Amino acid sequence: MYTVGDYLLDRLHELGIEEIFGVPGDYNLQFLDQIISHKDMKWVGNANELNASYMADGYARTKKAAAFLTTFGVGELSAVNGLAGSYAENLPVVEIVGSPTSKVQNEGKFVHHTLADGDFKHFMKMHEPVTAARTLLTAENATVEIDRVLSALLKERKPVYINLPVDVAAAKAEKPSLPLKKENSTSNTSDQEILNKIQESLKNAKKPIVITGHEIISFGLEKTVTQFISKTKLPITTLNFGKSSVDEALPSFLGIYNGTLSEPNLKEFVESADFILMLGVKLTDSSTGAFTHHLNENKMISLNIDEGKIFNERIQNFDFESLISSLLDLSEIEYKGKYIDKKQEDFVPSNALLSQDRLWQAVENLTQSNETIVAEQGTSFFGASSIFLKSKSHFIGQPLWGSIGYTFPAALGSQIADKESRHLLFIGDGSLQLTVQELGLAIREKINPICFIINNDGYTVEREIHGPNQSYNDIPMWNYSKLPESFGATEDRVVSKIVRTENEFVSVMKEAQADPNRMYWIELILAKEGAPKVLKKMGKLFAEQNKS
Amino acid sequence: MYTVGDYLLDRLHELGIEEIFGVPGDYNLQFLDQIISHKDMKWVGNANELNASYMADGYARTKKAAAFLTTFGVGELSAVNGLAGSYAENLPVVEIVGSPTSKVQNEGKFVHHTLADGDFKHFMKMHEPVTAARTLLTAENATVEIDRVLSALLKERKPVYINLPVDVAAAKAEKPSLPLKKENSTSNTSDQEILNKIQESLKNAKKPIVITGHEIISFGLEKTVTQFISKTKLPITTLNFGKSSVDEALPSFLGIYNGTLSEPNLKEFVESADFILMLGVKLTDSSTGAFTHHLNENKMISLNIDEGKIFNERIQNFDFESLISSLLDLSEIEYKGKYIDKKQEDFVPSNALLSQDRLWQAVENLTQSNETIVAEQGTSFFGASSIFLKSKSHFIGQPLWGSIGYTFPAALGSQIADKESRHLLFIGDGSLQLTVQELGLAIREKINPICFIINNDGYTVEREIHGPNQSYNDIPMWNYSKLPESFGATEDRVVSKIVRTENEFVSVMKEAQADPNRMYWIELILAKEGAPKVLKKMGKLFAEQNKS
Repeated sequence: MYTVGDYLLDRLHELGIEEIFGVPGDYNLQFLDQIISHKDMKWVGNANELNASYMADGYARTKKAAAFLTTFGVGELSAVNGLAGSYAENLPVVEIVGSPTSKVQNEGKFVHHTLADGDFKHFMKMHEPVTAARTLLTAENATVEIDRVLSALLKERKPVYINLPVDVAAAKAEKPSLPLKKENSTSNTSDQEILNKIQESLKNAKKPIVITGHEIISFGLEKTVTQFISKTKLPITTLNFGKSSVDEALPSFLGIYNGTLSEPNLKEFVESADFILMLGVKLTDSSTGAFTHHLNENKMISLNIDEGKIFNERIQNFDFESLISSLLDLSEIEYKGKYIDKKQEDFVPSNALLSQDRLWQAVENLTQSNETIVAEQGTSFFGASSIFLKSKSHFIGQPLWGSIGYTFPAALGSQIADKESRHLLFIGDGSLQLTVQELGLAIREKINPICFIINNDGYTVEREIHGPNQSYNDIPMWNYSKLPESFGATEDRVVSKIVRTENEFVSVMKEAQADPNRMYWIELILAKEGAPKVLKKMGKLFAEQNKS
Repeated sequence: MYTVGDYLLDRLHELGIEEIFGVPGDYNLQFLDQIISHKDMKWVGNANELNASYMADGYARTKKAAAFLTTFGVGELSAVNGLAGSYAENLPVVEIVGSPTSKVQNEGKFVHHTLADGDFKHFMKMHEPVTAARTLLTAENATVEIDRVLSALLKERKPVYINLPVDVAAAKAEKPSLPLKKENSTSNTSDQEILNKIQESLKNAKKPIVITGHEIISFGLEKTVTQFISKTKLPITTLNFGKSSVDEALPSFLGIYNGTLSEPNLKEFVESADFILMLGVKLTDSSTGAFTHHLNENKMISLNIDEGKIFNERIQNFDFESLISSLLDLSEIEYKGKYIDKKQEDFVPSNALLSQDRLWQAVENLTQSNETIVAEQGTSFFGASSIFLKSKSHFIGQPLWGSIGYTFPAALGSQIADKESRHLLFIGDGSLQLTVQELGLAIREKINPICFIINNDGYTVEREIHGPNQSYNDIPMWNYSKLPESFGATEDRVVSKIVRTENEFVSVMKEAQADPNRMYWIELILAKEGAPKVLKKMGKLFAEQNKS
């Protein structure tokens, strides 16, 4: 019998989803049976629900949709921080919550995983601020409601929440007859009119700049932007909140714009532009050097998912995704001006102990094309986001939501989504401790990222902001290199190393890149006080923000 | 200068709180400075926020109040499942959320750890269903508001939420001049009238039974109940949701009542009572054998925190806490009838492999007075809750909320709250994986529980409910005995053992009990299909509940 559960799985597969993350619970076991028996779906069980939501977020960044499953109450609330991150940073993630039978819910029984007050809607309500749409499925409304929330996900690129009672998962349903549609947007300003204004402005501009942000990645429009820039040779920069929204190997990619923390020649180039085309950008503190950006709105056309501005005139109800695609149709635009000198230095390793700044120079030199760099908020993000990536490479960070511990599961999720792009994770010891248990999953699922654990003995990023010598910025000292063994790895699955010097780093990095069939787990011993220059400056700016 | 932060800490100390759990973040570092410099407070930093909330819950069960600190957005949402558990099971836990400065919030800036929509109230709103009171502090309202929410906590024994902007923590305040008061309840029915009815009913009853539940523990009324029962010799049972609300070494303590899953003679005794005095009891599925209890409401007086019933007549607005205390004033009540035979067998160990049922027999025999048994929901809870505890012992479980992984941090929190009562934790391998990182904290803080990790290769409790051979009930196989070393322990701090036979179990248990200065980390290898009898029955009842 074709069921509601099957319908949901078929719709998820239509979104490109092939793996579902999550944790079993007694209210979702029937749906789990359906996942297991679905021919195109694979169940990837997590150690806990927060990690499942982080993995789904990482998977969605790469595959442009993801789903995870939890049980009612305990499971969904454990995951809600991860879902909030997906909401803040526009990642299309479906949370499916297995819940008690409709009868139990309607009768308000005092069952486990509830507040025992007979009200089964508390938790769905708690999800309102962090989901684009929510639904409680019944046997009658299920297929219509599933389509409604998934359409909202496609339009807003934000998470949605599906509450699936045990009995509804097993209820009879009809197979979908039509493909899923994105929720309609009615146009106030016609898309063509906006395109014409962009065309005209670009043609007239002497010093144009394109700035792209994270929403490009949410829609999977990176290749479109790259084609547009290749064709027009327009100078382009991105925020770190949107890094790898364009191929960084393009000659006209100038680096990361980050307000006062930008390279001086880039800052000058961007801020003196006579026309700014800003695509999918959100200006947040950690991506603008704490609001030290200077971008003239009078010279700017900016487009976002939900609204836009044409030289200070606000526009709404256009189709962001199709507008960006239509940029490829613009004709007669070719930039012939100058770019800037990019600061890219060769890295000649020595036997010196590895420092923060030398580390990122080394990474920039050694990284290869078609890799994915994942950098934890903290020293790793501010270090890694400032390097130039090779062609066809991707970057994952979380500068707005900034939930520490996020990147380890996210890297695993994204590596599962794209097994061809080797993932290089950079995470601090303090951050790893939040989500370390997914090491077991990485071993079991045979996924092979290269993980660098930056051991600088505590919360470096917090030390830079406040309390450099306070005990609360210390963390327990683990034996990081022994973790793979205790989490069940043998040497033929995971290579564990400790690196102290520049030479050791280069040699281990090259070994790992040449060995794609094993996971690498590399503890980097760095000085406690070490932080990338840009983080040191950022820490001061954030400390100021906390005084104002 | 005396500050709002100092005021808050002084009020928390008044509640008996001496340790504060949590995770640093850049919006709470100033308040952390105040914690560190407070003479009566200690900071205990966690590996992640969910674990902090679980630790606080465990601490609150033992010390009758607890507090933890997170940062805005990411931190509080990571902890919300733990707080919801404290709400469901009535534990007074204060969550303090360090947030951006009032100025940043009022200006709606797009700072990190927000949804970048200018609204800073989303997360407080998300906490509504799981907190008794919430407040956003300002320099002006701070002391009044702190007192308001803490009064609500004292009255309802549920969590409260305090949003503390960076600048407000540092603002000037006056020291408290009066002690904190419990929120007033106005009496409809006078407490004396209720007491008289109880007195009369107990005097007339031939077959009375007292049933106590978790709310007794929420208010720290265990000793009061024990005194009342010692004095009156009344037969008493508790639910597993409320186990150790009376000293189980008392002759008139009959065991745990659990509907159809009770021992037959206990079930008969309870269900044929001619008067039932029910104190602080909530009848939920996992504590009533899935609602198979038969308790005659016509013969019952029941009192709860928020309401009561006198033979089907509903009463409200009495003071639960003082009413229970007043039971000690009842005179002329002495039970002279019979009790039941308690099923308590001697345990003679052999070299046989350890089975589930033999394990709990062994524990019942070996446990000593003044110990605290902590049992994870799953095989451990259903096994451990059915044994008789020795005098002055405590029991911690979470049968209503039932969030797996909860007990490991909770045991650590409770062990910190009472260093004299040795804690014995029983947790399954699947559950441990959710929260394992606090092993680092246990090592660092030098706390010495005896931890039994029941390795039965997956989610046994879920197998009993659904899918005994499904792969989703498998979990990655870790080397549990090697975890302490990789989390930084040396042998003089943590003893790690693997136990397979009954003889080994007895010998290791005795060694651990005789060695209070080291933590014991004991992997128990049990058969995959093994589950306590009561869990096997429970699994079937829950599977039925999922069909209805």
